[in-house]
Amino acid sequence: MANNKKFVSAITSRDEDFAKWYTDIVKKAELIDYSGVKGCMVIRPYGYAIWENIQADLDRRFKETGHENVYMPMFIPESLLQKEKDHVEGFAPECAWVTVGGQDELHERLAVRPTSETLFCEHYSKIIETYRDLPKLYNQWCSVVRWEKTTRPFLRTSEFLWQEGHTMHETEEEAREETLRMLQVYADFYKETLAIPAVVGRKTEKEKFAGAEETYTIEPMMHNGVALQGGTSHYFGDGFSKSFDITFQGRDNKQHYPHQTSWGVSTRMIGAIIMVHGDDEGLVLPPKISPIQVAVIPIAQHKEGVLDKAGQVYDRLKKSYRVKLDDSDNSPGWKFSQYEMKGVPVRVELGPKDIEKNQCVIVRRDTREKLFVSLDELETAVENALQAVHDGMYEKALKNMQDKTFVAKTFEEFCDTAKNRPGFIKAMWCGDTACEEKIKDETGGVKSRCIPFEEENLSDTCVCCGKKAKHMVYWGKQY
Amino acid sequence: MANNKKFVSAITSRDEDFAKWYTDIVKKAELIDYSGVKGCMVIRPYGYAIWENIQADLDRRFKETGHENVYMPMFIPESLLQKEKDHVEGFAPECAWVTVGGQDELHERLAVRPTSETLFCEHYSKIIETYRDLPKLYNQWCSVVRWEKTTRPFLRTSEFLWQEGHTMHETEEEAREETLRMLQVYADFYKETLAIPAVVGRKTEKEKFAGAEETYTIEPMMHNGVALQGGTSHYFGDGFSKSFDITFQGRDNKQHYPHQTSWGVSTRMIGAIIMVHGDDEGLVLPPKISPIQVAVIPIAQHKEGVLDKAGQVYDRLKKSYRVKLDDSDNSPGWKFSQYEMKGVPVRVELGPKDIEKNQCVIVRRDTREKLFVSLDELETAVENALQAVHDGMYEKALKNMQDKTFVAKTFEEFCDTAKNRPGFIKAMWCGDTACEEKIKDETGGVKSRCIPFEEENLSDTCVCCGKKAKHMVYWGKQY
Repeated sequence: MANNKKFVSAITSRDEDFAKWYTDIVKKAELIDYSGVKGCMVIRPYGYAIWENIQADLDRRFKETGHENVYMPMFIPESLLQKEKDHVEGFAPECAWVTVGGQDELHERLAVRPTSETLFCEHYSKIIETYRDLPKLYNQWCSVVRWEKTTRPFLRTSEFLWQEGHTMHETEEEAREETLRMLQVYADFYKETLAIPAVVGRKTEKEKFAGAEETYTIEPMMHNGVALQGGTSHYFGDGFSKSFDITFQGRDNKQHYPHQTSWGVSTRMIGAIIMVHGDDEGLVLPPKISPIQVAVIPIAQHKEGVLDKAGQVYDRLKKSYRVKLDDSDNSPGWKFSQYEMKGVPVRVELGPKDIEKNQCVIVRRDTREKLFVSLDELETAVENALQAVHDGMYEKALKNMQDKTFVAKTFEEFCDTAKNRPGFIKAMWCGDTACEEKIKDETGGVKSRCIPFEEENLSDTCVCCGKKAKHMVYWGKQY
Repeated sequence: MANNKKFVSAITSRDEDFAKWYTDIVKKAELIDYSGVKGCMVIRPYGYAIWENIQADLDRRFKETGHENVYMPMFIPESLLQKEKDHVEGFAPECAWVTVGGQDELHERLAVRPTSETLFCEHYSKIIETYRDLPKLYNQWCSVVRWEKTTRPFLRTSEFLWQEGHTMHETEEEAREETLRMLQVYADFYKETLAIPAVVGRKTEKEKFAGAEETYTIEPMMHNGVALQGGTSHYFGDGFSKSFDITFQGRDNKQHYPHQTSWGVSTRMIGAIIMVHGDDEGLVLPPKISPIQVAVIPIAQHKEGVLDKAGQVYDRLKKSYRVKLDDSDNSPGWKFSQYEMKGVPVRVELGPKDIEKNQCVIVRRDTREKLFVSLDELETAVENALQAVHDGMYEKALKNMQDKTFVAKTFEEFCDTAKNRPGFIKAMWCGDTACEEKIKDETGGVKSRCIPFEEENLSDTCVCCGKKAKHMVYWGKQY
């Protein structure tokens, strides 16, 4: 590794400057590079390998729930984007527009897709004829573009990678089930694969997706108490179907409009992984998606037998895990720092004394806890360590979220908490957009995160206007 | 399957109208749909599943040869594209240009990437410092755009999916080795995975990639004798390195320019699969990439025990293969046609009489040969049938290519062959671009395909001008 020197330089402390700590990590763990293209990033091999592991896990979950992958064009003619009123209003202002093709000015400009509802609907209008053609359960992995003024790697970039599911159903009930099913797939994925807890629920009218009847969201909390919209699932009703004239012959032989959903998660999740789990030593990666799950580091590797034994350990572990044996000339200390910066969940150290005792040392990335383990039990010990890392990461993140979730019953309390205690605020709300606006204005940007599925009755009145409360809402600042 | 009705309608005969036969297949096998976006296509689930299988196989080969995946921005600022003179001349005329971002006219227009040499070079200039940073062996899976006036699904579309490898090396020798290594990876993939034979070799000066020193190509022949450029691998020398100021400190402590390669294959390969293997019943898919490898069709499925037994067959086979059990209400004849149209390599039929005899019927898609097989030997028989289909497809395609490869020693012979016998022509060439131009003009578009690695000495003089011959060249029309 020629770039080792870059690893030892310490990064900014997380508690001192969270924003700088974040950008230090994305650079020093070699996740991305800034590019000459404004607002776009280069995803480097280590960052992209995380994305590949995320993709493989999610894709399996999508296929298990009956979805098929397709690929739609990356361009949307302006007239097509305009077919659904709310949708175009939401997205047209942030599109990149192609106006020249080859040598010619185009008759109609083309948006680089910001999202593909309109393309899917155009296709569905051609292939859906009867109820037998339903449901259509399609997903697409691609990149999308939303023109952004200020950008941050993974969190907000003009181009990002994502998946977008787009489905059509015979009945409203079935489409609503699908919307919630996919929200649950996301929640399971966050917990089981990323070791990230989150609040899930429904977006308010103000915060929902352009053109959707309802938007559901998964909202993990970053270590600093700020929320990240981690994934959304939308129920569209038959609004797009009507705009795009998608009809099917029903079981009653009459023409009907199908009901639609869409749902998506993006490379933004890598930002969440960094900000939920990372520490002052660098990344801490969930074992399931870490490009390297186990780093094997020989100690005093010039001594006879050490590299041989390390090679045996590597050979045994690589049958089940993504393992790296680092036998480079760098010192063990160097290597420890490097794999800590890269967030490798488990490190196996092995030196002459260990070999004498037929043991190795297993070090957890999250707690830096050391375990001396007999080489006879290597596989089991590594398996247990990886599981313990996953569980430990989840528990720690859950505790952070719980510790930073507050209740506010009065507007003063709300503003005071918003100002002094970063995190989520649970508070009652009357249902009026005006109160959301007021809260946002007076707190420097606190927005409703979601109305959870299980609401608590904290009081009877809206925390903002004092009128009768309709919902308990999670509030918070967001990336 | 609601769309069954679409399957029985016969397609145009291959020998009658090859072009119409081709478009019939892409539509009827549900590989693509035309889109409202000029020159772009919708890749439907069945078509995309073929691409996913292609990707998985190639990606494994790339990783086995040490390559890592990355993701570069989809936009290239005009000034960046202009940095390498030959390259911009080749690509600028066919770019789609973004000129508006959000609400604003851009100061500099952005090309939607037609290929990403320039982006990789910009990144490499930042991350390569010393010889220890080399080689860099990167690959990217993405979509690219080249504005096309006339388009055909998979073969020529304004947007297509592909992979592009971009590597940097310490020495010319190493870069040249990489160029040929990746050409060989493609040739192996074509043979072992797609069951497609091809001619491989070096492109002439006239036909090489914009900015490359040398371009190598793999050229399979379609059933009708027309060539398809099936994949290319380029050696760039240090031309881009100089243009992009990429240098590294060498082992001699001096600054050097690294040597570069790039190589790519695209969704165009799906067009090759159709045109090499397809027949009048539809697609014939190579078993390794077929989304469904085995279709299990119950006969007289209303009779007691048939569906149970078919279910058992399905359960046994799905452990090792991508299997579909079709127990829909459609007749067996319907189903046969459907899976033949979709090119499923092996069909297993199972009716009451078969069950009595503890047997099933295995039918090969390529030859439609039937085999009666004891259910005790199901797995072995299916394995053998799939291998036999692969081998049979390859042999058939190889014979077609051999039968349609001709030798021309005089210009008359050449023109006569070009006019009357579609296929490859082997002929000697002096090395002058003028002769290539003349041949193209006088034969209605025959171009040099490549100079093969093993040249035959057919005669001493150029087939066109009669001067001293330098090379034996494969010539042919192309898609």
